[in-house]
Amino acid sequence: MKQALFKRFDDHYEEMVHIRRYLHQHPELSFKEYKTAAYIAEFYRQLGIEVQTGVGGNGVVARIKGKKPGKRIALRADFDALPIQEETGLPFSSTVPGIMHACGHDGHTAVLLTIGRVLHEMIDDLPGEYVFIHQHAEELAPGGAVSMIKDGCLDGVDAIFGTHLWAEIPYKTISYRTGPFMAAADGFEIVIKGRGGHGAMPHKTKDAIVIGSQLVTNLQHIVSRRVNPVDPAVISVGSFVAENAFNVIADTAKLKGTVRTFSEEARDFIEKEMETVIKGTCLANGCDYEFTYHRGYPAVVNHQNETEFLAKKAAEVQGVDHVEELELQMGGEDFAYYLQHVKGTFFFTGAQPDPESSYPHHHPKFDIKEEAMLLAAKTLAWTAVEYQKQER
Amino acid sequence: MKQALFKRFDDHYEEMVHIRRYLHQHPELSFKEYKTAAYIAEFYRQLGIEVQTGVGGNGVVARIKGKKPGKRIALRADFDALPIQEETGLPFSSTVPGIMHACGHDGHTAVLLTIGRVLHEMIDDLPGEYVFIHQHAEELAPGGAVSMIKDGCLDGVDAIFGTHLWAEIPYKTISYRTGPFMAAADGFEIVIKGRGGHGAMPHKTKDAIVIGSQLVTNLQHIVSRRVNPVDPAVISVGSFVAENAFNVIADTAKLKGTVRTFSEEARDFIEKEMETVIKGTCLANGCDYEFTYHRGYPAVVNHQNETEFLAKKAAEVQGVDHVEELELQMGGEDFAYYLQHVKGTFFFTGAQPDPESSYPHHHPKFDIKEEAMLLAAKTLAWTAVEYQKQER
Amino acid sequence: MKQALFKRFDDHYEEMVHIRRYLHQHPELSFKEYKTAAYIAEFYRQLGIEVQTGVGGNGVVARIKGKKPGKRIALRADFDALPIQEETGLPFSSTVPGIMHACGHDGHTAVLLTIGRVLHEMIDDLPGEYVFIHQHAEELAPGGAVSMIKDGCLDGVDAIFGTHLWAEIPYKTISYRTGPFMAAADGFEIVIKGRGGHGAMPHKTKDAIVIGSQLVTNLQHIVSRRVNPVDPAVISVGSFVAENAFNVIADTAKLKGTVRTFSEEARDFIEKEMETVIKGTCLANGCDYEFTYHRGYPAVVNHQNETEFLAKKAAEVQGVDHVEELELQMGGEDFAYYLQHVKGTFFFTGAQPDPESSYPHHHPKFDIKEEAMLLAAKTLAWTAVEYQKQER
Amino acid sequence: MKQALFKRFDDHYEEMVHIRRYLHQHPELSFKEYKTAAYIAEFYRQLGIEVQTGVGGNGVVARIKGKKPGKRIALRADFDALPIQEETGLPFSSTVPGIMHACGHDGHTAVLLTIGRVLHEMIDDLPGEYVFIHQHAEELAPGGAVSMIKDGCLDGVDAIFGTHLWAEIPYKTISYRTGPFMAAADGFEIVIKGRGGHGAMPHKTKDAIVIGSQLVTNLQHIVSRRVNPVDPAVISVGSFVAENAFNVIADTAKLKGTVRTFSEEARDFIEKEMETVIKGTCLANGCDYEFTYHRGYPAVVNHQNETEFLAKKAAEVQGVDHVEELELQMGGEDFAYYLQHVKGTFFFTGAQPDPESSYPHHHPKFDIKEEAMLLAAKTLAWTAVEYQKQER
Repeated sequence: MKQALFKRFDDHYEEMVHIRRYLHQHPELSFKEYKTAAYIAEFYRQLGIEVQTGVGGNGVVARIKGKKPGKRIALRADFDALPIQEETGLPFSSTVPGIMHACGHDGHTAVLLTIGRVLHEMIDDLPGEYVFIHQHAEELAPGGAVSMIKDGCLDGVDAIFGTHLWAEIPYKTISYRTGPFMAAADGFEIVIKGRGGHGAMPHKTKDAIVIGSQLVTNLQHIVSRRVNPVDPAVISVGSFVAENAFNVIADTAKLKGTVRTFSEEARDFIEKEMETVIKGTCLANGCDYEFTYHRGYPAVVNHQNETEFLAKKAAEVQGVDHVEELELQMGGEDFAYYLQHVKGTFFFTGAQPDPESSYPHHHPKFDIKEEAMLLAAKTLAWTAVEYQKQER
Repeated sequence: MKQALFKRFDDHYEEMVHIRRYLHQHPELSFKEYKTAAYIAEFYRQLGIEVQTGVGGNGVVARIKGKKPGKRIALRADFDALPIQEETGLPFSSTVPGIMHACGHDGHTAVLLTIGRVLHEMIDDLPGEYVFIHQHAEELAPGGAVSMIKDGCLDGVDAIFGTHLWAEIPYKTISYRTGPFMAAADGFEIVIKGRGGHGAMPHKTKDAIVIGSQLVTNLQHIVSRRVNPVDPAVISVGSFVAENAFNVIADTAKLKGTVRTFSEEARDFIEKEMETVIKGTCLANGCDYEFTYHRGYPAVVNHQNETEFLAKKAAEVQGVDHVEELELQMGGEDFAYYLQHVKGTFFFTGAQPDPESSYPHHHPKFDIKEEAMLLAAKTLAWTAVEYQKQER
Repeated sequence: MKQALFKRFDDHYEEMVHIRRYLHQHPELSFKEYKTAAYIAEFYRQLGIEVQTGVGGNGVVARIKGKKPGKRIALRADFDALPIQEETGLPFSSTVPGIMHACGHDGHTAVLLTIGRVLHEMIDDLPGEYVFIHQHAEELAPGGAVSMIKDGCLDGVDAIFGTHLWAEIPYKTISYRTGPFMAAADGFEIVIKGRGGHGAMPHKTKDAIVIGSQLVTNLQHIVSRRVNPVDPAVISVGSFVAENAFNVIADTAKLKGTVRTFSEEARDFIEKEMETVIKGTCLANGCDYEFTYHRGYPAVVNHQNETEFLAKKAAEVQGVDHVEELELQMGGEDFAYYLQHVKGTFFFTGAQPDPESSYPHHHPKFDIKEEAMLLAAKTLAWTAVEYQKQER
Repeated sequence: MKQALFKRFDDHYEEMVHIRRYLHQHPELSFKEYKTAAYIAEFYRQLGIEVQTGVGGNGVVARIKGKKPGKRIALRADFDALPIQEETGLPFSSTVPGIMHACGHDGHTAVLLTIGRVLHEMIDDLPGEYVFIHQHAEELAPGGAVSMIKDGCLDGVDAIFGTHLWAEIPYKTISYRTGPFMAAADGFEIVIKGRGGHGAMPHKTKDAIVIGSQLVTNLQHIVSRRVNPVDPAVISVGSFVAENAFNVIADTAKLKGTVRTFSEEARDFIEKEMETVIKGTCLANGCDYEFTYHRGYPAVVNHQNETEFLAKKAAEVQGVDHVEELELQMGGEDFAYYLQHVKGTFFFTGAQPDPESSYPHHHPKFDIKEEAMLLAAKTLAWTAVEYQKQER
């Protein structure tokens, strides 16, 4: 079975590359992936597979069913791109100015479509059902997962698996982690409402830049002093804007940033502590403020049983030496929502192109090792198929 | 003599108001005051007064000479406006969108032109010579004074006097100060060159916002700890810009600000201390920086003899109860340059419209009490005429 | 075997309590535990067990040897007390003013002595050898472990096990962790060398309190911004002393503190970053400094095989429901050194007296649940005996 | 008259030096100057001058009355010493360990006693009355002035004059200033009440050192941003104590410091702003605090008429070139209280021993140029005598 399965993936590798490159040339921004969704749906239709479009927005869901009864297993791939101007110089570079598949979602889609084709070809020999979730809008909150789940994509699903091609992990490595894996990614905005005035007369003002600077400094102390040192947490102020003439004292300073944590308690705690620090800092300076805290994706918390299962299956694909436990990742993923509803796991597939010329995700020169798609496809498919044997 | 002189000003008050309102309707930005300069020159030409245009830029200088020999006295008025959208609702509001006489230079010009007319009318009875310096570009460094002086406007001048209509001092008050009066007004720019990155991965970055915030805080200590408490000094960071997406860590932060002091030693000291604080803060954070310190106008340092003389003459105009010594002013004025070349003094003429509805200089609703122009004109003219009697 | 072994512990429980209480009444400070060492040695001598005293200082090592060959297993207990005035009100309170067994080492010693007695009683039925390491000076760097190892206490030892009675974990729970478990605990001292002076004349000074305060604030940023968020680290300034009259500006500020990390790389990194922050902060303020960083105990890194073995054996003693994996502990332990030389593991034995009336370690009212000693003794002994069956 | 008067001072110079050196050898701390007070009283008694002791504590007041009626003029000298161990190496060094006349009060007393002797000798030729106020406890709040005034030392007094021998002003210079001259000198204490704990577990604590450090930093902003730049003000934290073991987090931090201002409004403002900053900083950190603000001596505000009179008379003593206006002094003096009740002025008499080997006041090597006593005596006496001619 494994041999036959893997053989088919090898046979379709060329097509998988073709799909990925086509999508790479035609990226679309989150929540605007109309053509990509149509392309995906058309792929399944041509194979005669039942496909549902407009799921929770631009989401596409295809389903196939084996002859024998079994579990309903979902596999997920995201397909949106980023507002980045590509600088890779690749022959199949983006044809859309300012938009680029700089996170590998083109590859994810090629992987899942190929799994769809292969499992469809082998469906007579397979028990159970397979749901292919092509998710739009992973890059932009609130993300596509929530609405697709609401629209039923997980109905009756027993387990879900997903992977991210990861350019910072060597090719051939499968990286997994049980329990908390990727961070909850929240956002915040703070407006310091001081009182502006002439740069020469500070005593008639409430200097929003000085207050904002105190605040940025004080916020550091939440991570350094108030959070349990063994609970990873990040508070980053990414934007500080108080733009004025040089001889003015700022009326207002606008801060924006992100918070990363691994539990709902940590999110609640940091939001509360931030409010305390902001309130105290503003009180000390006699000024007002606005503070808005936006909950983004929750933490990706992998289920233990499914993660261990995935690790075992990955070892059967690539050899045990290439399967590694990964440390906590501060990045976020809306795969988190699926795992709040059904069992499953999310893992990384090493896709580093070449240590010397590799760039981080979201970089204008980002690229992936395309062969990694083959490994991802085999691992996901083999896990899905074998999971049918699991005790309920 | 005094009676005759003042009578003439009273007679020409209506015209003075007319001039001021005309100029108020037609404001021009610093270094672009072409029409205003032409208007001024035309005024003198119509009176048959010798006038020199294009002095150091858009500057205009008129000169008259009494029958009897005497000192050469200069009076100065500035005539540029500001990039502010007027909101006074006055019937003679600015007709130019986004530009406004929001500092009273329209009034200064009306005052000096009227003095020109009156002294011209009385020239046969006057000893000495009178130079009317209509200066462009007071609001914008490097200012018009430097180039007008270079172009000879002070040649042979024995003393210079000037006033500012001041909306924060009650009408009828003349305010003077011996020695340091208005601050040296310098500017600076700081670029914090950190290393940007993902908001979730601070350890791979050098957070320019955190570093900039530390710096703003540390800069406060120069005034609070290093400057002699009896030497007034201000360091204001007026602009802090590090604009990014919320989930990013800033690569760069750009700060701009102003420094106010009352001596060249203080300017040197603060520039040096700022460099020390910036260098140390950046070293502590392992980042680079750019620091530029621009010398603006020096401090206005009034000459003792001329200031006391002005105070005496002002008392003869308005009564001793309306002549007051003023505390140090943190604002700057390029009148400072004239006082580096010849003796003289710069003073404030109270022009508060009405305590309830008065707005600070440079405010969109700024206005002056027009009657204050009459007082300014009489005080300046009487001082100039009487100064002829001073011992050299 | 297990039954027989445990029965003997139950039979000797009363004596174990007696020993613990006697030691509790007679605490001695680190490196000065002369009488305690003598008491321990005498205990073994009375049983006819070979005992070595003065091992690496006040250390005591007893050894017994089974009839059958086997592995050489070491068990370790520490026996020093703390400079704390006891406030428990217990009938067997410390009789020495200002010194108290406030960390449970009295219990550890009672546990290990009782194990010595029991294994000695059963020695004819046991394979292998058993080394009882009674370590002095765990509470005070450099600790007793280093010198005892140097003096040969681990010679020929195949594996070592140790436990800490832990008052913050419920009675009956055994808590373990594979890999990094307890933190490396370093210390540092910083002297800010400013220039003192009169409180009214800051400009003639370099204010060591202001500089020290900036430094404390800046040091927070190492943990909040520079350390990888998934690597737990703590930098605490525990002492800040600049004691002067109110109307003085401080010449010098003395700071002391601790650093906690889980790897040698992290220690190196933080020491280097601290130096950078201190140097930059002092440069910004034109002052000098002294910085001393003392390496304390390294991280306790438990060996995987031995930890999993311990967890299995603990489950056989107390039931699998009472054996739990514990999160990283920021506290330090010089058991770390033993694990750098031989395989083994260090674990916590839950000894919370009563949730309502329990106090943290090193608190004047600290106490333990004495029954926990019995569990600790059984778990350690059973692990040691069973470990003989392990493959080398 | 002047000649005769000055001749007498020249004749008594040797005795003046003798008195000063005797007092220098026998210093007494503030509020404990029993022997010094007795010495002063005895001096007057021996001359047959009426003397009152125990005035408001250890204060001594002598009075003489001319034959002719006139004004009642008071002259004041303080006589307490400081808790400093002398290091001058002078042959007449302090004989009391740890106590030293390190501020020149020994000289002040010698000056005033000699004036008493001289005016007593010339009393038949003098109009008016002379009150010699020998004040105890100038160095320590609440000072002796308040209680001496309460006890009547200023009763019927028309004007008061006093001087301070000043080691940082060249010998032969008399320095005066009209209006605010020396600062109000207040004190404060702040206790940060955090929650202590183990250095490795910051999240269970409220770190009083971090909070205190934030506070010290934030307090700087009052002077740098909130106080009018032209109003000199100083806030110095002179003491920061949180002494603990290195591996602890501080429960409490104790701060002490001083505030210097020149008006009652400024004192009120800064006390209020400090409370705001402390409250906000503690709120931001969730901790409590205690804040105590002690009003010390108010600002010394010299009366204009008396100051100008003193300056004129000083010029008659030493020549106009040696009389200079002085800038604001941040130090405090309880002479301030006398000036709240009667007209008068307080001035500095230059007493720098030698530019190379001169030390600031309160320094263990502090000394004065003794000849300056002669100048101080002549200036005070001549001013007092001549002041009789002033119009009431």
